[in-house]
Amino acid sequence: MKRTKINLLLKLETTPGKVLVKGWVRTKRDSKKFSFMEINDGSCLKNIQVIANDDLENYPDIQTITTGTSVSVTGKLSASPGKGQKWEIQADQIEIINIAPESYPLQKKRHTDEFLRTIAHLRPRTNKYGAAFRLRSEMAFAIHKFYREKGFRYLTTPLITGSDCEGAGEMFRVTSLDPKMIEQQGKMDFKTDFFGRESSLTVSGQLSAEMFALALGDVYTFGPTFRAENSNTSRHAAEFWMLEPEMAFCDLKQNMDNAEELVKTLVRHAMDECPEDMALFSNFVDKSLPKRMDILLNTEFARVSYTQAIDILKHSKKTFDFKVDYGTDLQSEHERYLAEQYFKKPVFLTDYPKQIKPFYMRMNEDGKTVAAVDLLVPRIGELIGGSQREERLEVLEKRMKEMGLPMENYWWYLDSRKFGSVPHSGFGMGFERFLMMLTGISNIRDVIPFPRTPGSIDF
Amino acid sequence: MKRTKINLLLKLETTPGKVLVKGWVRTKRDSKKFSFMEINDGSCLKNIQVIANDDLENYPDIQTITTGTSVSVTGKLSASPGKGQKWEIQADQIEIINIAPESYPLQKKRHTDEFLRTIAHLRPRTNKYGAAFRLRSEMAFAIHKFYREKGFRYLTTPLITGSDCEGAGEMFRVTSLDPKMIEQQGKMDFKTDFFGRESSLTVSGQLSAEMFALALGDVYTFGPTFRAENSNTSRHAAEFWMLEPEMAFCDLKQNMDNAEELVKTLVRHAMDECPEDMALFSNFVDKSLPKRMDILLNTEFARVSYTQAIDILKHSKKTFDFKVDYGTDLQSEHERYLAEQYFKKPVFLTDYPKQIKPFYMRMNEDGKTVAAVDLLVPRIGELIGGSQREERLEVLEKRMKEMGLPMENYWWYLDSRKFGSVPHSGFGMGFERFLMMLTGISNIRDVIPFPRTPGSIDF
Repeated sequence: MKRTKINLLLKLETTPGKVLVKGWVRTKRDSKKFSFMEINDGSCLKNIQVIANDDLENYPDIQTITTGTSVSVTGKLSASPGKGQKWEIQADQIEIINIAPESYPLQKKRHTDEFLRTIAHLRPRTNKYGAAFRLRSEMAFAIHKFYREKGFRYLTTPLITGSDCEGAGEMFRVTSLDPKMIEQQGKMDFKTDFFGRESSLTVSGQLSAEMFALALGDVYTFGPTFRAENSNTSRHAAEFWMLEPEMAFCDLKQNMDNAEELVKTLVRHAMDECPEDMALFSNFVDKSLPKRMDILLNTEFARVSYTQAIDILKHSKKTFDFKVDYGTDLQSEHERYLAEQYFKKPVFLTDYPKQIKPFYMRMNEDGKTVAAVDLLVPRIGELIGGSQREERLEVLEKRMKEMGLPMENYWWYLDSRKFGSVPHSGFGMGFERFLMMLTGISNIRDVIPFPRTPGSIDF
Repeated sequence: MKRTKINLLLKLETTPGKVLVKGWVRTKRDSKKFSFMEINDGSCLKNIQVIANDDLENYPDIQTITTGTSVSVTGKLSASPGKGQKWEIQADQIEIINIAPESYPLQKKRHTDEFLRTIAHLRPRTNKYGAAFRLRSEMAFAIHKFYREKGFRYLTTPLITGSDCEGAGEMFRVTSLDPKMIEQQGKMDFKTDFFGRESSLTVSGQLSAEMFALALGDVYTFGPTFRAENSNTSRHAAEFWMLEPEMAFCDLKQNMDNAEELVKTLVRHAMDECPEDMALFSNFVDKSLPKRMDILLNTEFARVSYTQAIDILKHSKKTFDFKVDYGTDLQSEHERYLAEQYFKKPVFLTDYPKQIKPFYMRMNEDGKTVAAVDLLVPRIGELIGGSQREERLEVLEKRMKEMGLPMENYWWYLDSRKFGSVPHSGFGMGFERFLMMLTGISNIRDVIPFPRTPGSIDF
């Protein structure tokens, strides 16, 4: 007999008669002549109730079943008299695959997120984390679908790199040399390393993506990026996923249009395709989610310049921990004030002072600001960062020299401005930040299957 | 006026009148009163022909246009009298965005793959590499589509890891320590490193994926993996993408069924969705491709045990460089003999001797072999490697101890065999190997946007 997954079973309109279900026991309660079990197989949030009658051959064994036990159940699918469940299974046969001992950590009670992080290998078996990771999966697909339908090509960019896109220097080194050997021998030579020079884990696939945008038109990367930033905040991880579209013949406005359409489409997709999992987050994690999703979907995002934003902040009556000053980076408190209190919706800030932005951003006519854009959203802060890229060779070279970049490492990048350069733009969206916005989960560690943060590399 | 991409333009049944096209000039020839230009924008293999009349205001400038120049063209889309092209554009206006100098490396002539590797940032502008990378994009999507339709969840597993899945030891180290500092100070301590212990780049996401399969049911990972193997072959890269499905309640046969259906579905998808790009490879890269695709699609893959395969090899009249011996790994020449000459189609080999396979594979009843499976395909050799996993705690622990694994690093992995363990299986498919099979491209460096091999980290 062929197994049916529980999500499909629960969608059936009429009973097919006998069914086979495999999964894990979430709860069990016994009456004199029956055992009632809730079985979950991870295909959806909901369990299916199984009723075991005491005339089953192995009923004594069935009574020993514990939470977490794996079972295979055949029986008749029948309309359930129970509230909130359409179907239940009257078991003909229950095969116990593996009894979970009493030490199974996920007994039926509330567990803290902190505790569940210590058992990241088991937490997807809980309602909340099952829902979070099903959503993560579906959102990754929605990203691919969105860009494919727009004619974008997906590009995988190398993670081991010899260049530093952001120039921030917070990169992990990658080496095939043995540090213990270096210690012993007291010498080291990058020439003997795997790549013959210093290499690191990338902070962005953008520079590579630009090369492909100038060949294939519209492209995007979606993959892991890294920061060796030794900070223990709820919004930073050492390894996270980033979406980076890059569009040829595209200016800053079109860049923002794409970003806004992306966010709206993804939110709509989540609500249409994962209503049950989304409801869990509205009900148990963040009651304000429906309202926030409504704003995301149904209002036009605000668009103001950095200069205007500074003005707004200076004229606000709020006292900030960090002083607001033209020419400095906005702090999280400033970003959140703008999105949450002032605009009360997502807001694009554009045209930042050049000194707080990377070398590749296009210089504006004022010679002071660059065609940068950040999207700030309530509760999250910066969700997206992007720019129009500097396509003019001389302007780019001048800027790179100003900033002291090692030009010889960027010969290929400069080539793209020599050979059929065109205006182009792109942005990066932190996938985990997006998921936090979508679920109300407030710690980045809880939307990543096995998060990497300082000191954290178990599993 | 809104720009139309060339792939959409070429699909039009009737002319919309005026169109706007942006792209790069592939070739240009001048007659007395006309310039003919072939424009490509990367959206498809085909160019659109643009005809510039000498009454255009900037005709003198137009005559200076070179191969590689970026242009923006408005004009009337008209039926083309030329052979093999449906439409052409009678230009009203040609804006020259950026003239490419004579030094542009992609002049109209044949370039070797070796040369093009030295300009990996420009090669997607050629017909062959444009086609290869469009196919790569579409095949990544086909993978997500295939598994999503089967109810699998996509999982991203960490790339920075503290454990070694394959036990082969060929891993890149990841560190935030400065090797120059270690050299100077003559001492180092992993406790001061970012993760507080030795860490590396993963060779497989399987162990993490198993944890999720035992929670969500059917899952898959699709992401980068790494090998610090100092070998310069046409089939190995230091960084490559791997697809790894992992299925709960799944045995070795179902594992093979899934793998076979996957391969057939992907090939079918490529032929249906990318006929033009596929035709390029059949016409210019490997004339035997259509026949090989036909075999992939329309024959049932063979399935034999490793033991039977050894028998076949021993009884073959072929002289191999490496001796065939029960208990040793098959060499490429053996794999290719089996797939190409003996079976003449893909063949699954199963049930390998335990000593040549990793610790996690399920022990067969004979106590000598494990429930492993490799899929060998003509011209490629091993495309897929997988197994049923050892779900029995005692058997697994015994095996790990035998092999001297540091048990304390695997506590979480062992947990999954304590708490509701179930039979489960999975496999890994090298994405680049698959693309090589699909395109006939014989060097892995030519199906990766920016390949990483020993000494190779430019771009």
